[in-house]
Amino acid sequence: MNFKNRIETLSRIKSDLFQKDFLLTWQKSESDLQMILEVASILKELRRQNISSKIFDSGLAVSIFRDKSTRTRFSFASAANLLGLEVQDMDEEKSQVSHGETVRETANMISFFSDFIGIRDDIFLGEGHKYMLEVGEALDEGYEKGVLPTRPGIVNLQCDRDHPTQSMSDLLHLKQHFGSLDELRGKKIVMSWAYSPSYGKPLSVPQGIIALMSRFGMNIELAFPEGYDLIPEIVEIAKVNAKNSGGSFSVSHSMEDAVKDADIVYPKSWAPFHIMQQRTELLKIGDKKGLADLEHTCLAENSRFKHWEYNEDIMRLTKKQNAFFMHCLPADISGVSCKEGEVSAAVFEKYRIATYHEAGFKPYIIAAMMFANRFKDPAQMLHYLLDRNRKRVEST
Amino acid sequence: MNFKNRIETLSRIKSDLFQKDFLLTWQKSESDLQMILEVASILKELRRQNISSKIFDSGLAVSIFRDKSTRTRFSFASAANLLGLEVQDMDEEKSQVSHGETVRETANMISFFSDFIGIRDDIFLGEGHKYMLEVGEALDEGYEKGVLPTRPGIVNLQCDRDHPTQSMSDLLHLKQHFGSLDELRGKKIVMSWAYSPSYGKPLSVPQGIIALMSRFGMNIELAFPEGYDLIPEIVEIAKVNAKNSGGSFSVSHSMEDAVKDADIVYPKSWAPFHIMQQRTELLKIGDKKGLADLEHTCLAENSRFKHWEYNEDIMRLTKKQNAFFMHCLPADISGVSCKEGEVSAAVFEKYRIATYHEAGFKPYIIAAMMFANRFKDPAQMLHYLLDRNRKRVEST
Amino acid sequence: MNFKNRIETLSRIKSDLFQKDFLLTWQKSESDLQMILEVASILKELRRQNISSKIFDSGLAVSIFRDKSTRTRFSFASAANLLGLEVQDMDEEKSQVSHGETVRETANMISFFSDFIGIRDDIFLGEGHKYMLEVGEALDEGYEKGVLPTRPGIVNLQCDRDHPTQSMSDLLHLKQHFGSLDELRGKKIVMSWAYSPSYGKPLSVPQGIIALMSRFGMNIELAFPEGYDLIPEIVEIAKVNAKNSGGSFSVSHSMEDAVKDADIVYPKSWAPFHIMQQRTELLKIGDKKGLADLEHTCLAENSRFKHWEYNEDIMRLTKKQNAFFMHCLPADISGVSCKEGEVSAAVFEKYRIATYHEAGFKPYIIAAMMFANRFKDPAQMLHYLLDRNRKRVEST
Repeated sequence: MNFKNRIETLSRIKSDLFQKDFLLTWQKSESDLQMILEVASILKELRRQNISSKIFDSGLAVSIFRDKSTRTRFSFASAANLLGLEVQDMDEEKSQVSHGETVRETANMISFFSDFIGIRDDIFLGEGHKYMLEVGEALDEGYEKGVLPTRPGIVNLQCDRDHPTQSMSDLLHLKQHFGSLDELRGKKIVMSWAYSPSYGKPLSVPQGIIALMSRFGMNIELAFPEGYDLIPEIVEIAKVNAKNSGGSFSVSHSMEDAVKDADIVYPKSWAPFHIMQQRTELLKIGDKKGLADLEHTCLAENSRFKHWEYNEDIMRLTKKQNAFFMHCLPADISGVSCKEGEVSAAVFEKYRIATYHEAGFKPYIIAAMMFANRFKDPAQMLHYLLDRNRKRVEST
Repeated sequence: MNFKNRIETLSRIKSDLFQKDFLLTWQKSESDLQMILEVASILKELRRQNISSKIFDSGLAVSIFRDKSTRTRFSFASAANLLGLEVQDMDEEKSQVSHGETVRETANMISFFSDFIGIRDDIFLGEGHKYMLEVGEALDEGYEKGVLPTRPGIVNLQCDRDHPTQSMSDLLHLKQHFGSLDELRGKKIVMSWAYSPSYGKPLSVPQGIIALMSRFGMNIELAFPEGYDLIPEIVEIAKVNAKNSGGSFSVSHSMEDAVKDADIVYPKSWAPFHIMQQRTELLKIGDKKGLADLEHTCLAENSRFKHWEYNEDIMRLTKKQNAFFMHCLPADISGVSCKEGEVSAAVFEKYRIATYHEAGFKPYIIAAMMFANRFKDPAQMLHYLLDRNRKRVEST
Repeated sequence: MNFKNRIETLSRIKSDLFQKDFLLTWQKSESDLQMILEVASILKELRRQNISSKIFDSGLAVSIFRDKSTRTRFSFASAANLLGLEVQDMDEEKSQVSHGETVRETANMISFFSDFIGIRDDIFLGEGHKYMLEVGEALDEGYEKGVLPTRPGIVNLQCDRDHPTQSMSDLLHLKQHFGSLDELRGKKIVMSWAYSPSYGKPLSVPQGIIALMSRFGMNIELAFPEGYDLIPEIVEIAKVNAKNSGGSFSVSHSMEDAVKDADIVYPKSWAPFHIMQQRTELLKIGDKKGLADLEHTCLAENSRFKHWEYNEDIMRLTKKQNAFFMHCLPADISGVSCKEGEVSAAVFEKYRIATYHEAGFKPYIIAAMMFANRFKDPAQMLHYLLDRNRKRVEST
């Protein structure tokens, strides 16, 4: 990588990320998104060349997770560590949605030394994004009133609506695979439901993918069995995006039809929107019997669609029988991690290493979000790091 | 802030904090306490001005908590991080009091690389402080025998007797609010019991407040319903302190009488001393039935004092109807965090941001305790940091 | 310590530790082992002299523990911190053995920013070492395919076969006590079973001790009640080692016979090999009834050997009635941590501080394993650190 050229390119991108939270990709301009991709790529290369990106001498990055997570937790911790922040976990009660006073106060109490707060809250439909906004307002107040020395930036590590660190990693993966964002124009990507022996999986990945990929002139095909709808207003956003960017958006209820001429397939199980709504209501009132019944019904319903598996027969229908396969991991792999799942063992194995690479962008995407939040001119700061040339690992 | 002047002032304070544990404020001289306040203020300002206070290149700060804590945990982690130490949590079994061999050995096993140990142990009356002394003795032995390369300092993050990081934060808050420690002379502070729908709350906050504020010529009014006594010997300490410092100390069983002419009110629920004693005995023998019965009796007893709520009627009785309100947070706010609580929503809202500021001193108080424990001449080291002028966050 | 001389000595040791995992001592040459001991000693002295050994500017050290551990966790965290890495814990499900796809994927997902992975997996006989090999293969693949920027090194923090960080600490302790490795030649060490009121204790400590100490010309006496065998192939390794190094190896079923003329005694409870095999099978199928029955039988069997206690009568039978006592801690001390245990209170007290010193080598042994894994020429890098002369704690 020619750093100077890359940073030069970067310096011409006009973005509006400074001191802004990163919650939903559709609230960001194309320039903002390009900025994140570029900074992420440069940070990745800096590390590969053993050049330190440590910009904080001390400071905390707080992680708030409403459910257990290994991958996202490590990605966040890695990003924080790369920049010099120490992660402190804040464990919210799993089944409890904090609101109002509690959020307002706690947000301040954990932020006296915090530079970033990463939040993952995808269990309750209608809650995750709202919660992040509430935290943001509390931090605004705390900063304005002089309680907090800096306004910590919020990074959405997955909410009920979007999963921007995932979708941006996926976009960077596609950019790298096809050569440039321009090369994505006119490419057909199938965001597809697929069978899984579990239920209640969040909608944020498919929603994030259709809302983001539609920004770059791609042809989006959203495929799912009838009834497995996503949140309608986010589908609407994807439609508008596609129109504005010169791409297209369509929905299909046949996997076979959907994958025809596909350049990219992204199978992923999710729960129907209306089920997630019911589930949220039941969780709120703590109705265990109702939840068990709902799970039973849904698993039975799911099992009608076991043929929604990405196997070699399906892949043969794609462009040149060779569509690029993506997954956010972990995948439900038939005969490996479950009896019947989202993808056959043979298809997954072919793309296994590619999906690892895909996942490997996430720490850098998160670090880039932090970087662009903190510095008005990221290009200048990257220049500084390059000139500083501090080694990540000492050598003689 | 004129750093040079402040540090110059600091250099004239003769303190005896070097390599000493900070367990109880009443074991420290007024100069010691002033030193902590000053160092905390300077560290806070250094951070605000983006000047690094990192004095450790590596090293651990161990936290031992006998119960769950978000605020204190974050304060300790923040202080450690500010100075360059990494926090390692040591989770003791909740309901088990370790003694003798176990404490002696464990204290050494966790200290090979530790510079500080922060302990919160406030559940068992008669145990918390004793436990800290035991840990301290074990560390003394380990250091003397060459097992440990340094003698880690102990910071009391709350015990059964005192809560010095809280009371010192509160004192710094008062100092800042009224302008100086001298301005506190003759001010009336009401440390008052207040109703809460829970039971078994520790006594360390009210005890810490009366024992500390009585050092600076304040008029202490301790108010509680009959039967809700604190540990007698600590009340005695407060009395003596008040006498020595030219202040006063009195007890009242009427909230209305107590708050008359009050400059400051500090409402806080606590459990009666003799109940905590009973509870400790029951916890020690693991008598669940006994504990349930005790809780039942106490909640019934508590509910007789629901009128001990700090609302606008009560506040109107204070000096100029405008006493300064303090709380260690989280408060039980009527109609917000509970049905009936320590403080009305209107009164709390008026002082909400002030209580956030109050809490915001704690990380710096803890950092100051560490700083003064580690350096014989804190003024000189602060001078060094100022001259070093390393940025906390890089900038170009 | 004369650093220059020590490092000069070190530079003449030819080792093959660079970019190699440290899983089993018997896969390492004597030079490798000497290198670890030397680097550990120098790192310990550097810290004592307040000279920083920080060689990483950022990066993670991941800890994977299948059971709770305070000591090993702190040792690993300390080592990582000393070198500049931040620990991230990865909590595996306790009772679940991950294999194949899950291990392969997870190993990569946690390693994008990791420099080391420390694994403790000693519950299932036949699984721990295998699991580490699987993780290693997954990391090899990830590194080769460009998924990982560096190949994280694996440190065995205890498996079913060996406990190299323990045995190497013990060896360094012996080296220090007797003056040199050469002084260990001809010394008699008794690795002895001892009674404990619990069951299912792992075999890795006694196995690690007999397999390592037999490398240095010591006379190994393995003592246990009939039926309490170790894994036969590791006993075989110890025999061959003893023969090759000019020492000896023998087994005794009488504690009294074993300790005759002993220079060193190392009592430690463990479960019989065949019991651990049965237990592993029962754990795998989750047979709770079977596990309870097995525990019952074993405790009854154990109680037949309560006289296997290291008390003053036994110690009087050793060389000059004064054998050196070792223990990996925590010990089951009769009348202190249990009614009847591995060692009497009087004997333990005599050697208590010595066992603390023994434990204190572990963080440095781990750090040395990391150091030698990362730098082709550890001597050169230690030279660099000495010349850099950065203070661990600032001073004016």
